[in-house]
Amino acid sequence: MSPDRTLNVVAFAGSLRRGSYNRSLLRAAQELAPAGLTLTLLDIDEVPLFNEDVEAGGVPAPVARFTQAIREADGLLIATPEYNHGVPGVAKNAIDWASRPPSPSALLGKPVAILGASPGMTGTARSQSQLRQAFEATGSYCLPQPEVLVFQAHTKFDPEGRLTDEKTRAFLAKFLAAFAAWIQRLQA
Amino acid sequence: MSPDRTLNVVAFAGSLRRGSYNRSLLRAAQELAPAGLTLTLLDIDEVPLFNEDVEAGGVPAPVARFTQAIREADGLLIATPEYNHGVPGVAKNAIDWASRPPSPSALLGKPVAILGASPGMTGTARSQSQLRQAFEATGSYCLPQPEVLVFQAHTKFDPEGRLTDEKTRAFLAKFLAAFAAWIQRLQA
Amino acid sequence: MSPDRTLNVVAFAGSLRRGSYNRSLLRAAQELAPAGLTLTLLDIDEVPLFNEDVEAGGVPAPVARFTQAIREADGLLIATPEYNHGVPGVAKNAIDWASRPPSPSALLGKPVAILGASPGMTGTARSQSQLRQAFEATGSYCLPQPEVLVFQAHTKFDPEGRLTDEKTRAFLAKFLAAFAAWIQRLQA
Amino acid sequence: MSPDRTLNVVAFAGSLRRGSYNRSLLRAAQELAPAGLTLTLLDIDEVPLFNEDVEAGGVPAPVARFTQAIREADGLLIATPEYNHGVPGVAKNAIDWASRPPSPSALLGKPVAILGASPGMTGTARSQSQLRQAFEATGSYCLPQPEVLVFQAHTKFDPEGRLTDEKTRAFLAKFLAAFAAWIQRLQA
Repeated sequence: MSPDRTLNVVAFAGSLRRGSYNRSLLRAAQELAPAGLTLTLLDIDEVPLFNEDVEAGGVPAPVARFTQAIREADGLLIATPEYNHGVPGVAKNAIDWASRPPSPSALLGKPVAILGASPGMTGTARSQSQLRQAFEATGSYCLPQPEVLVFQAHTKFDPEGRLTDEKTRAFLAKFLAAFAAWIQRLQA
Repeated sequence: MSPDRTLNVVAFAGSLRRGSYNRSLLRAAQELAPAGLTLTLLDIDEVPLFNEDVEAGGVPAPVARFTQAIREADGLLIATPEYNHGVPGVAKNAIDWASRPPSPSALLGKPVAILGASPGMTGTARSQSQLRQAFEATGSYCLPQPEVLVFQAHTKFDPEGRLTDEKTRAFLAKFLAAFAAWIQRLQA
Repeated sequence: MSPDRTLNVVAFAGSLRRGSYNRSLLRAAQELAPAGLTLTLLDIDEVPLFNEDVEAGGVPAPVARFTQAIREADGLLIATPEYNHGVPGVAKNAIDWASRPPSPSALLGKPVAILGASPGMTGTARSQSQLRQAFEATGSYCLPQPEVLVFQAHTKFDPEGRLTDEKTRAFLAKFLAAFAAWIQRLQA
Repeated sequence: MSPDRTLNVVAFAGSLRRGSYNRSLLRAAQELAPAGLTLTLLDIDEVPLFNEDVEAGGVPAPVARFTQAIREADGLLIATPEYNHGVPGVAKNAIDWASRPPSPSALLGKPVAILGASPGMTGTARSQSQLRQAFEATGSYCLPQPEVLVFQAHTKFDPEGRLTDEKTRAFLAKFLAAFAAWIQRLQA
């Protein structure tokens, strides 16, 4: 990491639940981020259902704030659960808003990294694949590897939502360092 | 079609825009439904963002109405646009709600058919594929064929949103007859 | 199961490796099939790379045998690994051949069930999703649920390739009974 | 483009048919490549079905040549048709071979671009999406945009397989320039 330039990455969780494993995962990511990368958590709770008629009357303030934060960031990190073999509607809805004009959109050319946690065994594999499909469409640059699929999440966080599994912590740190390198490579 | 039993199918569009091609497509489907099948349009405008914390405090009334309508129906029809190479967040969000307990969910074992319209050329191929993935997870029975992909939708509807393209009307009628037969086959 | 009619299901593994977990899974399925369902294993080792020029000169004999076996069967069962986040090329290649004219293809209207085993944790979730996409195109009827994803396969088979994990055996038996019911429902 | 370093890109078509639109598309790409980028066409006709037992006995010579050509190249270009809503088995099979050890694989960190032509209307949208999923797994760097989906291919090539549609030619040239820039950006 270059010492003279901090990378500003914004992140959001694909679940609105307060105790969401994916929110907890992002808090752990804040602790484990490499020197020179700061991670700011965004809320999508106030981002309404996408509606082109609403948009035509003026972008709602929570959407404008969300989109602007992405526009100004060096990268975007998403921690997503899997709902019904795919990306949660609430997460996709936030991306649908962020992909909108004015052109270039906030997502065009943006470095993106995806991770996910779930109580089950397949992790969030299918959800992550669908998210990547969205970022092809938006012309964003998804980090292809490594993948972070946190299986059986209930065994890896303590009751306060702190990521306690050491192996997962080490892997998450490695993933974040790879994302920082990916951003720097694309900015060079 | 059996003369003594009307099939009650509910439908919704995956776009909230008033002038949506997919809403217009569903209105055309109401006209073109075979004898013995009635099509009732549902609104998802009032279905809020899915949030398990909200659900724990009581399912919001618009969600309860939406889910109950699906539960009572013989089949579910979805007309979807494609946003960012996938299913619109608002459409997936409605499905995420409908898939929830009490078990069996409103979607388990439900016959489903999917169609879509878009101004572009790829139609809604990727969006429809992702929707089908969701219905595998919910244990619903998606009609595999025929597919209705309405390309270049702006050339097929008049300014009042009436489907004027005769070829598309004929194909839509055939699709709806196939869906009726699919429902009857699964109910036998 | 009706006592007077045996269901003839054909199956193949999506891996050509002799010691493949998915071949072993199909052998276990033969033992665990419900009364009234017989499972015949097909080989795809001799099915060559699909080439429309070759096809125009006459369908190769191994392809003709493979396709005819599917055509005559009451159902098709596929046990697949996951290669590179998707369906193995060899498995898709066999399906590509089977989907070809004369019309109706051997796959049109055919009941299909998919399962998979892999040494890793995500099972074969993404591979199974892609296979289902293929069967939408061919107009086949995929059993949506239950899903069989055999994780950490190396812990569930003995060195002779016998499925020894009792929980997986019980689940596999349940899956096969559901497939038999699915076939009967579609044949009614 | 830097004047002092030629980019060596290898390419293959996902169809084995001699008169394949996708082969023709690659020949057009050779003509339209920007200065400083040379495009070499690879054949996958001799790449056999992937079989780990065969691999253990020694990688077949056509596979070794194919993989080595990718390993030495600055980038990989694939022109694919869509078979049964997905990537042709023959194309995926070639990728499955190329992804194999010794580590790092020939695909790790490799810049990749995907395009496709088909006679129908949905182009090869679903096939391209599945190919991208494979390249996430292999840790390759897929160019996200622009997309080249050549619809109704029979109207865009002459009987000798020459791409005659001027709009498509211009777009293809733009796509290739973007791929050259993508490779250079990742090599910087």
